[in-house]
Amino acid sequence: AVLGARKMEDYGRFLALLGSALLVGFVSVVFSLVWVFHYREGLSWDGSPREFNWHPVLIITGFVFIQGIAIIVYRLPWTWKCSKLLMKFIHAGLNTIAMILAIVSMVAVFEFHNARNIPNMYSLHSWIGLTAVIFYSLQLVLGFAVFLLPFAPVPLRAALMPIHIYSGLTIFATVIATALMGITEKLIFSLKNPAYSASPPEATFVNCLGLLLVIFGALILWMASRSHWKRPPEENAKVLQPIGGTPEGTEAESTMTDGSNADKADLRINSEAARKQNLKLDEAGQRSTM
Amino acid sequence: AVLGARKMEDYGRFLALLGSALLVGFVSVVFSLVWVFHYREGLSWDGSPREFNWHPVLIITGFVFIQGIAIIVYRLPWTWKCSKLLMKFIHAGLNTIAMILAIVSMVAVFEFHNARNIPNMYSLHSWIGLTAVIFYSLQLVLGFAVFLLPFAPVPLRAALMPIHIYSGLTIFATVIATALMGITEKLIFSLKNPAYSASPPEATFVNCLGLLLVIFGALILWMASRSHWKRPPEENAKVLQPIGGTPEGTEAESTMTDGSNADKADLRINSEAARKQNLKLDEAGQRSTM
Repeated sequence: AVLGARKMEDYGRFLALLGSALLVGFVSVVFSLVWVFHYREGLSWDGSPREFNWHPVLIITGFVFIQGIAIIVYRLPWTWKCSKLLMKFIHAGLNTIAMILAIVSMVAVFEFHNARNIPNMYSLHSWIGLTAVIFYSLQLVLGFAVFLLPFAPVPLRAALMPIHIYSGLTIFATVIATALMGITEKLIFSLKNPAYSASPPEATFVNCLGLLLVIFGALILWMASRSHWKRPPEENAKVLQPIGGTPEGTEAESTMTDGSNADKADLRINSEAARKQNLKLDEAGQRSTM
Repeated sequence: AVLGARKMEDYGRFLALLGSALLVGFVSVVFSLVWVFHYREGLSWDGSPREFNWHPVLIITGFVFIQGIAIIVYRLPWTWKCSKLLMKFIHAGLNTIAMILAIVSMVAVFEFHNARNIPNMYSLHSWIGLTAVIFYSLQLVLGFAVFLLPFAPVPLRAALMPIHIYSGLTIFATVIATALMGITEKLIFSLKNPAYSASPPEATFVNCLGLLLVIFGALILWMASRSHWKRPPEENAKVLQPIGGTPEGTEAESTMTDGSNADKADLRINSEAARKQNLKLDEAGQRSTM
């Protein structure tokens, strides 16, 4: 009963964090729309600044918000009764949508630059942003080939999973850093009379958007890195588990800090399961010496 | 022997990553010096742009490079024979140096701004940067009070350790993101005729510095999040360990993905230890049924 109450409390804490992340992510998207419609020229696809404006909107919607949700989608407790395969499709699908929106948002900037004879790819923002999109696409293709298609052997999946998780979280953090650079650039370039340094309302408003993106990123990274919020393993994983207790942390659930040795992963147990087992054995040990 | 060879290979991989991180971090510091001495006005403390130039140099030296080393200092295998207390002092000491350099670097900007009547704290860079310095200082004070002073009870330490690790890594990533925003700002403001968009040599050079900071951050985060590179626990931790095998993951070694429940931590075992134990028990189980 005590354990049950603690689990409920933990579940409540997860829901509170998830609610906060969804709220902050949603408000970020709204802020990006208010930015381009209230403070800027709005949206269209005609080589004007209105075409550029798709860039922040699509990046924040797709490359930040949707990517963030894609990262934590396995953690949603009500999806644990769905098949792992379905969840992999949802994870890959959300990431595909995010990638497409990121690419379209880049096209908007290139077309805007070309229409105005502004050079492309000169800024640190553009260098790191393009690198992030390339790595993100590679990650998606590799993830699809290794974890979704049925050909990769389990040891290869186990060996690549920690790298997949680390790369995913690092790319996500890099995307947010790139968004902050983009906000900085855009505010400096577009605010004249009053300038950015005079803190007009638009500057303060968009600075707040930047803060929201950092908070969103921090919430997603916290949820993604708590091992006790991981999806429990598939039923067939139990075959690999010689001793009772809840087996957790098979191939697909390995977290960022798991070792990358393939030979470890197939018998991996998380600390909770190990603790239970340990206590059980401890009891057994005491009984045998009594 | 096979296990030994694998351990040596793993040790070699750690050394290669550490060497890369030290090289990239060192080259970043050199780049910041080349930037201010070769492309900019040099360094002095007189309210001129030369005073501002302390800002990138001290941030990259202290808040990026030294902070990065402070994060992975427990992972250095040759320190494992040193007492944990000594390592905590080194960790806290390096972080204190980084904090002081970050504060001095902020003072340099404020004095430069004030000498030129440039407003302070208007940019997203300044908002997130100041927030990072405040959180970093809080983290240092709290870490000192809880983990270095002998007063905090073990369950409190165990409960706060995952938060300490998460906060540390998140602040570190935020500091690098802030540095990238700072580079963006400075290049836009200081490059005129030719402008940033014309890609003069300084622009390309400092963009490369930005890339180096991202690579340094990625290397540190990889090393910090591999649980198999953690410092083995203190001897006294073995008392808590009812069963043989290497006990790992006590209070101070909990990693980013460990659960935050205090009651778990005192009996925590990492997956490697659990696996060994599991195999041992499996053997025993087979023997008993044979």
